[in-house]
Amino acid sequence: MDLIAHLRAGLPAEAILTDPDVTGSYAHDMASFCAAGTPAAVVLPRTVEQVQHVMRTATALRVPVVPQGARTGLSGAANASDGCIVLSLVKMDRILEISPVDRIAVVEPGVVNAVLSRAVAEHGLYYPPDPSSWEQCSIGGNIGTASGGLCCVKYGVTAEYVLGLDIVLADGRLLTTGRRTAKGVAGYDLTRLFVGSEGSLGIVVRAVLALKPEPPQQLALAAEFPSTAAACEAVCEIMARGHAPSLLELMDRTSVRAVNALAHMGLPDSTEALLLAAFDTPDPAADLAAVGALCTAAGATEVVPADTPAESDLLLQARRLTLTALEGLKSATMIDDVCVPRSRLAEMLDGTAAIAAKYDLTIGVCAHAGDGNTHPTVCFDADDPDESRRARESFDEIMALGLRLGGTITGEHGVGVLKKEWLARELGPVGLELQRGIKDVFDPLGILNPGKLF
Amino acid sequence: MDLIAHLRAGLPAEAILTDPDVTGSYAHDMASFCAAGTPAAVVLPRTVEQVQHVMRTATALRVPVVPQGARTGLSGAANASDGCIVLSLVKMDRILEISPVDRIAVVEPGVVNAVLSRAVAEHGLYYPPDPSSWEQCSIGGNIGTASGGLCCVKYGVTAEYVLGLDIVLADGRLLTTGRRTAKGVAGYDLTRLFVGSEGSLGIVVRAVLALKPEPPQQLALAAEFPSTAAACEAVCEIMARGHAPSLLELMDRTSVRAVNALAHMGLPDSTEALLLAAFDTPDPAADLAAVGALCTAAGATEVVPADTPAESDLLLQARRLTLTALEGLKSATMIDDVCVPRSRLAEMLDGTAAIAAKYDLTIGVCAHAGDGNTHPTVCFDADDPDESRRARESFDEIMALGLRLGGTITGEHGVGVLKKEWLARELGPVGLELQRGIKDVFDPLGILNPGKLF
Repeated sequence: MDLIAHLRAGLPAEAILTDPDVTGSYAHDMASFCAAGTPAAVVLPRTVEQVQHVMRTATALRVPVVPQGARTGLSGAANASDGCIVLSLVKMDRILEISPVDRIAVVEPGVVNAVLSRAVAEHGLYYPPDPSSWEQCSIGGNIGTASGGLCCVKYGVTAEYVLGLDIVLADGRLLTTGRRTAKGVAGYDLTRLFVGSEGSLGIVVRAVLALKPEPPQQLALAAEFPSTAAACEAVCEIMARGHAPSLLELMDRTSVRAVNALAHMGLPDSTEALLLAAFDTPDPAADLAAVGALCTAAGATEVVPADTPAESDLLLQARRLTLTALEGLKSATMIDDVCVPRSRLAEMLDGTAAIAAKYDLTIGVCAHAGDGNTHPTVCFDADDPDESRRARESFDEIMALGLRLGGTITGEHGVGVLKKEWLARELGPVGLELQRGIKDVFDPLGILNPGKLF
Repeated sequence: MDLIAHLRAGLPAEAILTDPDVTGSYAHDMASFCAAGTPAAVVLPRTVEQVQHVMRTATALRVPVVPQGARTGLSGAANASDGCIVLSLVKMDRILEISPVDRIAVVEPGVVNAVLSRAVAEHGLYYPPDPSSWEQCSIGGNIGTASGGLCCVKYGVTAEYVLGLDIVLADGRLLTTGRRTAKGVAGYDLTRLFVGSEGSLGIVVRAVLALKPEPPQQLALAAEFPSTAAACEAVCEIMARGHAPSLLELMDRTSVRAVNALAHMGLPDSTEALLLAAFDTPDPAADLAAVGALCTAAGATEVVPADTPAESDLLLQARRLTLTALEGLKSATMIDDVCVPRSRLAEMLDGTAAIAAKYDLTIGVCAHAGDGNTHPTVCFDADDPDESRRARESFDEIMALGLRLGGTITGEHGVGVLKKEWLARELGPVGLELQRGIKDVFDPLGILNPGKLF
């Protein structure tokens, strides 16, 4: 019996796509420079049992499986390999439970981040992780890539909100990890092992998520700096003085200009670095005043607090548009995701500017500055082989710089295909050997998302 | 060459203890009912290289190694096995770095929790995890057992503060996991895998810990309830309404009376349940007033807010004395650590009372109520075989009740020897198989803390 017939035995006909014109559209996520193969089939299960059937089939026939969420990822982790089954979880999109007393939600993996956020808000609750793609990306994808967002400086990353998981293993068995309690230390933390594992250990089919009480609406300010170094000094002062901003973002001049060009937001075109800070505290105006003073002391030429949440939202909208705006500058972009200790942020940004100059490239930088997490975005003409080569080299040099500064090659986007050579450099041989050993425990046949991570 | 000679080749003489009268004092932690063997030697290394030498020796000679911190654990995880090397990390007790800008501390494993807490406070920083034994317990032990404390309802457990680790592996190689950045998703989260692994995967020799800004001093209230059910209703209301208490603790009547008997604290002897709540917010008095009103609505007969931080400290001191006070009631105690969803807390407490009645035993309960984490403490006469048997049976029945209510057998004390049969029940066969697979990756010879966890 061939693969498709095998799949049909346990899936409704409409859950299996084989038309190459259709399956081709599932071949890759949003990353540049990442190879993608041609899937043998795309399956869209609606139940745990159907996922189990897919995995049993894959194990029986030794067919690779590439799990997918909304394919908004930026590292190629969801890219198809030749002859694989693309296992898209987007149809498993039910919110199964929201409990204000236990402060948890139980969801299927295909639930869109923004849909969950809005649903829990109706109960006075808050699901913090907010990747830029939050209107499209799925919770399963967020878990697979351990994604972050603007909220992380105060609320942390996806990993901190995953309490327990139901996982379909490579051989189709069902594993339940973790808990629905606030605490629990029974055995090794398998839940956390799955977060960020990019579909390489098993298929998440259900998640118990921790929620927070909904905070007050945040109020933001924008501060203009004559240099990125001065802006970074302000960031360090803000964090060292014990402030708890709900976001602390930096846009360099290239980013500011690109956003203005795209959306006419009226951001200050001539500034070298724009810092956005927000507070969702009981008295955000007081916190903004204190932080504004620190910005001025660090050399800010202008500090503009928003008077209303609506004005604050406009500022954040500008920040959220940055990647789209930078994408408009050239035919292609590569977005990096280097995270350094925030005490090294200024060196990271100055070093990135030097790399842009060295390779004669436009590299716009926005950063979750409070976390030291920078997104240098290399803009280039994909039809120009020399510029493409320089783009790729500069991208790598940025990662090398991050590692030299005590940082990591990926703060929140993951490894996927894009950075797998770099993962080996960051982990070193001992770490890599142990990570591979863990992979073998969960996936002895190597059918789960092969060619990713390692 | 025998074991001792082998050890001496890489350790100073004073770092090796072999006198049975001395080594015997390292044989066990603070858990009852947990077998402990006779170590062949106790080693007290001061450097990473010395730890590596111990592990190379253990691997070469196939000798089991039992890592130890301050031996304040409550599950026998640090108990010696016959012929083992006890590897005590207490002499590696340096604080290597405290960075207010990066909000991290880098420490050796033997640093005492309270020593670290005080050291970071001098920089305006806060290391939240505060197990009851915080004046004695070590950071390495806290990491090994993933310990919690009173702070967890607002600040979470030890796991959330461990960013990166240096680990000496079973064969003596050095592994560095994680990061010193705020975020990072490069590969599987090995750091988290080690937290709570009870020394079964490797030896923590250095830890990068996340710190928080020091919060305002907390202010507490005490509320008296006519039943534990009413107190639990208040807990649920407090959490469902979005309050963020810095602690939310419950003491049952047995605990209250025991503390009064020990320390004459003047707690209300006749109340069925005493709830303690505290806030370290900008306006704690306002938060306490709101929570006090919720307590009254849930049936509290009296609500007494502290007027000063000193009064608050007295209340917390009473709570912290509970275990010691219960230990005074009989010749022996077994402290349980069941965590249930807080929506099931009332059932857990009523069920525990029913179990105490069924077995004709005194079981005092204090609970990190905001987390649903209860510590039923079975008090019994160890010289009375029948009472000892009933104590053990009731202890198990309490865990069974916790699992039935969707909880876990251990919220923060770990598995060790005490609960290893129960771990298998909680994890199920698939989970257990995978956990064992991970153990084999890190410790193929099975020399690291054998007989614990599984």
